[in-house]
Amino acid sequence: MYSRKHMVAAARGDEPMDWLIRGVNLVNVFTAEVYKADIGVKDDRFAAVAPYQEGLPSFAMSGKQEINGEGKYAVPGLIDCHVHIESTMIPPDMFARAVLRHGTTVAVIDPHEIGNVMGTEGVEYMVHASKNLPVEILTTIPSCVPAVPGMETAGAEFYPEDIEKMLKLPNVVGIAEVMDYVGVINQNPRMAGIVEKGLQAGVRNEGHLPRVYGSDLAAYLTAGVDTDHECRSTDEILEKLRAGMLVYIRESSISQFADIAAEAWQEVPHATNIAMCTDDVEPSDMLKNGQMNRVVRRCIEEGIPAPLAIRYASLNGAIRFGLRDRGAIAAGFRADFSLVDSLETMEVQDVFVAGKQQVKSGILQADITSNVPPLLRNTVDIPALTETDMVIQAPVPTGQVKLQTMEFLKNGTTAKGVLTVEVEDGQIASLPDDYAFTSVIGRHGQGRQPFVGVLKNSGLHQGAYATTVAHDSHNLVVTGTNATDMLLAVEQIKQAGGGLCLVENGEVRELLELPLAGLMSPEPIESMAKKVEQFSTTARSMGVQVGRRSPAMAFSSLTLTVIPEIRISDLGLVDVATQAFLPLFIEA
Amino acid sequence: MYSRKHMVAAARGDEPMDWLIRGVNLVNVFTAEVYKADIGVKDDRFAAVAPYQEGLPSFAMSGKQEINGEGKYAVPGLIDCHVHIESTMIPPDMFARAVLRHGTTVAVIDPHEIGNVMGTEGVEYMVHASKNLPVEILTTIPSCVPAVPGMETAGAEFYPEDIEKMLKLPNVVGIAEVMDYVGVINQNPRMAGIVEKGLQAGVRNEGHLPRVYGSDLAAYLTAGVDTDHECRSTDEILEKLRAGMLVYIRESSISQFADIAAEAWQEVPHATNIAMCTDDVEPSDMLKNGQMNRVVRRCIEEGIPAPLAIRYASLNGAIRFGLRDRGAIAAGFRADFSLVDSLETMEVQDVFVAGKQQVKSGILQADITSNVPPLLRNTVDIPALTETDMVIQAPVPTGQVKLQTMEFLKNGTTAKGVLTVEVEDGQIASLPDDYAFTSVIGRHGQGRQPFVGVLKNSGLHQGAYATTVAHDSHNLVVTGTNATDMLLAVEQIKQAGGGLCLVENGEVRELLELPLAGLMSPEPIESMAKKVEQFSTTARSMGVQVGRRSPAMAFSSLTLTVIPEIRISDLGLVDVATQAFLPLFIEA
Repeated sequence: MYSRKHMVAAARGDEPMDWLIRGVNLVNVFTAEVYKADIGVKDDRFAAVAPYQEGLPSFAMSGKQEINGEGKYAVPGLIDCHVHIESTMIPPDMFARAVLRHGTTVAVIDPHEIGNVMGTEGVEYMVHASKNLPVEILTTIPSCVPAVPGMETAGAEFYPEDIEKMLKLPNVVGIAEVMDYVGVINQNPRMAGIVEKGLQAGVRNEGHLPRVYGSDLAAYLTAGVDTDHECRSTDEILEKLRAGMLVYIRESSISQFADIAAEAWQEVPHATNIAMCTDDVEPSDMLKNGQMNRVVRRCIEEGIPAPLAIRYASLNGAIRFGLRDRGAIAAGFRADFSLVDSLETMEVQDVFVAGKQQVKSGILQADITSNVPPLLRNTVDIPALTETDMVIQAPVPTGQVKLQTMEFLKNGTTAKGVLTVEVEDGQIASLPDDYAFTSVIGRHGQGRQPFVGVLKNSGLHQGAYATTVAHDSHNLVVTGTNATDMLLAVEQIKQAGGGLCLVENGEVRELLELPLAGLMSPEPIESMAKKVEQFSTTARSMGVQVGRRSPAMAFSSLTLTVIPEIRISDLGLVDVATQAFLPLFIEA
Repeated sequence: MYSRKHMVAAARGDEPMDWLIRGVNLVNVFTAEVYKADIGVKDDRFAAVAPYQEGLPSFAMSGKQEINGEGKYAVPGLIDCHVHIESTMIPPDMFARAVLRHGTTVAVIDPHEIGNVMGTEGVEYMVHASKNLPVEILTTIPSCVPAVPGMETAGAEFYPEDIEKMLKLPNVVGIAEVMDYVGVINQNPRMAGIVEKGLQAGVRNEGHLPRVYGSDLAAYLTAGVDTDHECRSTDEILEKLRAGMLVYIRESSISQFADIAAEAWQEVPHATNIAMCTDDVEPSDMLKNGQMNRVVRRCIEEGIPAPLAIRYASLNGAIRFGLRDRGAIAAGFRADFSLVDSLETMEVQDVFVAGKQQVKSGILQADITSNVPPLLRNTVDIPALTETDMVIQAPVPTGQVKLQTMEFLKNGTTAKGVLTVEVEDGQIASLPDDYAFTSVIGRHGQGRQPFVGVLKNSGLHQGAYATTVAHDSHNLVVTGTNATDMLLAVEQIKQAGGGLCLVENGEVRELLELPLAGLMSPEPIESMAKKVEQFSTTARSMGVQVGRRSPAMAFSSLTLTVIPEIRISDLGLVDVATQAFLPLFIEA
């Protein structure tokens, strides 16, 4: 720790600054202005900012190192209020490397995915692996493990007492998106208990409340959960802002709403309860489009004035999480900032964290690694399987049966369907074109044989596609046209300790290993992005089509038992609307 | 403590609200809007707010008790970010009674005056006497006791270790206005140490930084002190807002700046770092003009839109002091609010705190008293005095001498002057008209005979005026034309344990007893206001004229050794600019 003595001396002018950025366009998030200034950094803090008056700084400073800021913009370190590192498929240190180059200096993570796989151990790993990185990673504790109890089996179940224990881990700032809003609104003991633990601990209870309005919205807020990043319309944003909810503008790989946020902003330009998050960003998307700088850029494109957009992405997040000296470029604040060439592009050139230059002209200045080795225990704990487990066992030895099917729609949702098929030797071992088997194999040591269903419009014409990235329980999902290829894909993934696999005619076409919880791999984002791209190319060549996400994530949401209309879990087919199981065989 | 269960049930509509305010104009401080809504209160919280659409609430609620809010405005409980209760001359419970009727529900106090008199004991008394009142009183620990060490003697001296101890008292949220900014900027060990204690404890370091700009402002901020309520010009406000300082708009009995704040606001209407305070409000001023509602009213008068002015007076203060569920009318927030007839007058009709109606049509609904009895130990500890102590002992037995004098100016400041007088019998026992003796008697057990100086323009033509309210050390100050009256006034105050006294021709004209530290009296504001008014009337009739404050406070700032140009302390005449003592006798 630095003492304030030298910083204050530098502010007075009695010592040189460590860094002096001259004549830069300062984005002032307090007053929502942009103007020319000199910025002095001493030790880990901004020690003085001298705005220009008539072409000259209002007071003189000197610096041991100086940067000519002419034509550049100085932007506070960006604060991502809600992000799942697992979506980027790399561990915290690699994530820090990746987001730092986009100007993000604080990330509030929700290790929901690894929590579903590895339970408390997974959450603890993320907390400890996130320590001492140049990006400050703060953790919120996953509130909904499993997402829908009773309808699926995850690798863990978190009850209020578990949450209470995890809230005591270092750098924990809250309870993560409370997705089971029905449980909260109805005050069911588990969810009410979890929210209460957050209130008692004095941390932040983070929300998730798509399309909920009126008295239900009031009930959720009254219960003690007060943020949301799931708005789908301008009116929804306006209602939530007026209700006093902190709305996070999200631009993720899956869902974006800068456009409607900007529309809402037009109506309430003085709204104070807006921050930002990225939620889920896939590796190649981050490389192409950025991370928090992308959220800012999109908001500016949509018409939110740049200093306000940047305030939402910095100061307002800092206030939310009690980071009193973050989120602004001002004397006394921690010197987290970026230099960007233009506020329109938000292309980040240089990044400083706590007064140290971490990125120079887009290049990381030091290697970033965690002291905690990646948690490479094999989490793919499945029973012994044979080809028989990959096809459907019929209740009759021969004849026709009617099957309840799932149908992929272009918009990423699913619809219920019915398929009549012939039974041979008590099995359904092949399906018409456009249909594929989808088997969900409990991989958390459940010890049960897989549940097999039928999917229409997977796009797969032959072969099999298997993945351990299958929200939210992340069991092993394999979709294929034949048992041989399916079983081979499953075996590959088992040996790899998780990942994505494509098999065609008995040949392994792709194996993307994700040995860290079956979700991540300890490697740089560049190599991960390349692998994912290659996997997607091959999947596409095999016919895989998807509505909204990349081919590499084609089947990752098939198990998401909260998105309409029908989904599959290790326990069976789920009718999302009623949250009841549907029988596979439909009575004639 | 209430559980959330019933509140959430009420929000859902499954239970009635305790209170339902129908069709009121809601001041929404989040979005800075005013619109019609129903407001439901259950237990201690707002459980739901239903805005009107096309003349109807967006959802229906019922209430055990209902209030017709038509034509009224619902305003969040106001938060006073910096106030000295002692200036209202009544203890915390009486203060709570008084401010509640003006819609103030949280007050962050600085017991600086009693701290100067009674040290830690005084601060502890204020903390404990402030507990469990309907107004939530939070304490900041006085940072500058005495205000100017070495130039005056107070009843205590606070060093970093003392501050550290007091920070552990209940409901302490910060270190109070760090007035010795020179000490902070130069990092002198005492002031740097005190600020450091605040940083270490994670509390708020509150500032006081009149007319300080540029690199000195940066140094103060970098040192870790980041609020100010002492701006004197629009440019000063703008510079501080841009520097990231939280500016409190102050309307006190002594100094007001809503006008310049509104001018600054015009320039930076999106500024986020503005809150409000009252600092010092004298009893009759509060009765006439209000308290926090007066600050809001003045800002609205000067052109700040009402919902923004109210945001500064509520939500922004709550954020400053980490009060996460205060400062807004929104589901989940504590139900602290007022109903006012108009935003222009801010006349408060009804006040609710934590869901309980405390004020109804301007009338307090329950008696408010502290469990802690007033601290009535006599603090007037002065040496035995004779008339000789009240006049000036000359260095020569006879002849003329030149005296350094103080001269009251109309604007409340002072100027240096010179007076040539005749010495008789080694004494100066009488003065020309327009001049009076002013004696400062250490009343904190210093055991020294008083220092006597000469004041021009006191207005007193005869008699004497004595007071124990004498900022900041609150020694006993007596101003008079003759030793007999002066001594009588002093004796009266000594017996009363402090207060204000007027004596004329050997007769006590007024004695306003302030037995609580010589600063306060345990009585309602109404009776205190009456006494102060009467004292002022009599003082005025005796000729007392003052620049900016009431006759009752005429001599209370004569000892304020930080306001130009010359002041007096128990140790001598102080040259404010150089912070050096001036000899009373000027060499010829």
